[in-house]
Amino acid sequence: MASSFRKDQSKPKRVVIALGGNALGDTPAEQIERVKHAAPALLDVIEDNNEIIITHGNGPQVGMIQKAFAISSTLDEKVPVMDLPECGAMSQGYIGYHLQQGIGAQMHRTGKRWHVATVVTQIEVDADDPSFQNPTKPIGPFLTKEQAESQAAQDPSFKFVEDSGRGYRRVVASPRPRRIVESESILNLLDNEFIVVACGGGGIPVIRDTDNYGCYKGVPAVIDKDMAGALLGEDCDADVLVLLTAVEYVAINFGKPDQQNLTDITVAEARRYADEGQFGKGSMEPKVRAAIRFCEGRPDRVAIIGSLDKAPEAVRGLSGTRIHY
Amino acid sequence: MASSFRKDQSKPKRVVIALGGNALGDTPAEQIERVKHAAPALLDVIEDNNEIIITHGNGPQVGMIQKAFAISSTLDEKVPVMDLPECGAMSQGYIGYHLQQGIGAQMHRTGKRWHVATVVTQIEVDADDPSFQNPTKPIGPFLTKEQAESQAAQDPSFKFVEDSGRGYRRVVASPRPRRIVESESILNLLDNEFIVVACGGGGIPVIRDTDNYGCYKGVPAVIDKDMAGALLGEDCDADVLVLLTAVEYVAINFGKPDQQNLTDITVAEARRYADEGQFGKGSMEPKVRAAIRFCEGRPDRVAIIGSLDKAPEAVRGLSGTRIHY
Repeated sequence: MASSFRKDQSKPKRVVIALGGNALGDTPAEQIERVKHAAPALLDVIEDNNEIIITHGNGPQVGMIQKAFAISSTLDEKVPVMDLPECGAMSQGYIGYHLQQGIGAQMHRTGKRWHVATVVTQIEVDADDPSFQNPTKPIGPFLTKEQAESQAAQDPSFKFVEDSGRGYRRVVASPRPRRIVESESILNLLDNEFIVVACGGGGIPVIRDTDNYGCYKGVPAVIDKDMAGALLGEDCDADVLVLLTAVEYVAINFGKPDQQNLTDITVAEARRYADEGQFGKGSMEPKVRAAIRFCEGRPDRVAIIGSLDKAPEAVRGLSGTRIHY
Repeated sequence: MASSFRKDQSKPKRVVIALGGNALGDTPAEQIERVKHAAPALLDVIEDNNEIIITHGNGPQVGMIQKAFAISSTLDEKVPVMDLPECGAMSQGYIGYHLQQGIGAQMHRTGKRWHVATVVTQIEVDADDPSFQNPTKPIGPFLTKEQAESQAAQDPSFKFVEDSGRGYRRVVASPRPRRIVESESILNLLDNEFIVVACGGGGIPVIRDTDNYGCYKGVPAVIDKDMAGALLGEDCDADVLVLLTAVEYVAINFGKPDQQNLTDITVAEARRYADEGQFGKGSMEPKVRAAIRFCEGRPDRVAIIGSLDKAPEAVRGLSGTRIHY
């Protein structure tokens, strides 16, 4: 986006915006609709003199792709088994396409001549990340005990756990993201004022393959998309990280009579609340941890957790929970 | 790729290389292997002082994705129907990921510090392209007459034809590509010396939606990937277009006692042979027509049709069929 389009000629802030995969719906038609709904808020953030980098979750989408292949490959010999890294790559293409189209449409309607580019992104994780010893991230459909045992017999690398009486699910590791392989591509587009979509679904997780000269290979794992967003923010020296979710504020004593929405907290407070177990393990706590990680990189950074509809207000400081030093 | 890495300091030639989807195999494991096999030849083209832009077909891959969703969506209500533009976007992510990884691995092994970036690419086609009135490109599995009639009843936009006694197949239009929507992203990366993967599968076909302010929307169609490659060559002002296929040469009188492999022909000769029906309608003729289209853009251009294994030799003029003014 050429700076001549900006009303405000001061140095733009660089803002990484992480969209939840759940916010994108469960079908192509829903996803097109949700992106259409989100696009004005995203472009408003740019209008306020910011550069934006968009990342997104892919939970429902990669689950759908994986399920489509899991079902079909047992019924049709021409449909291969498709493992998680490849399903993740597909989800990046699928979601990136709709983001490009939906944001492009909003720009077209409002006369903006910016460009959106999706970068297919691998993220390196450590082969000896402790999470590989203790995979906990459930993926794919619920199975009977017999189905789980049969799949584990076919591929001993598959691990299954019983999920609260509802059946068995495959679990994979959720390793810490170490390095964005396509960092240079992202930075290059960003420095040339593109709206960049990157690290979709937390990135395609890859490790160094010691059997192949240390080249990358995909691993079945799921990187937390907010942690990937924090790393993306670090790589492109972002000023602000915005983690968008279904609620407007992070709260303590959540769901209790003394629930308190947080509007402005320090990194030390955020860490203390997280250590106290104030936040949902699989939902809000990873967001708060990602926010802390991002702030640790540079003391003048701000991380904001807020709702998609109020993204521009959140960046302006009028909505959401701000975390900073 | 920084020019300091080049042995030859003269101005590099810009080369668009189109890989056939069939050359990439039918499963993820095959695709990884095929890309690994192709990567040295692709990098050798760069070593010879060329910039490369890679495009690729996606016939088998998009067919597989489409089939996985077609089968599963009838069996599991949580798997939605997935139409062709979205399946194409998925195939771009899937193939781009493996190309990034496989070419990256070859660079790692040979100490090159270049970067590969995949751009998710939409290509605009005309809503009134005549091919939409007469779709001929078969996609998806063979169906019984009853299955085809049932699907046509569900979605009247679906057209089916009988395919030589083997059953019924859905056919879609194969419109002429008019404009690469993500042209700026591709050019920007290319000008900064990235190896770019773009327009996969001929690009995701989109039209201007007159019901939505002329914004783009996907259409179920298949753009010929060699024609898309010719347009890509035009957009990035390429010097050479290399269309890689299973054979080393274009031939006339193909399969007859007087078969003659062509090594060097003019655009006029190529057009005459094509008009005579010398080339297979669905195989070699589109390649020759794409080569002609590319050469028409600038008289000093060369289009080469040759085999993947001999890509570097083809660019050097030692293999393949060269077409030029």
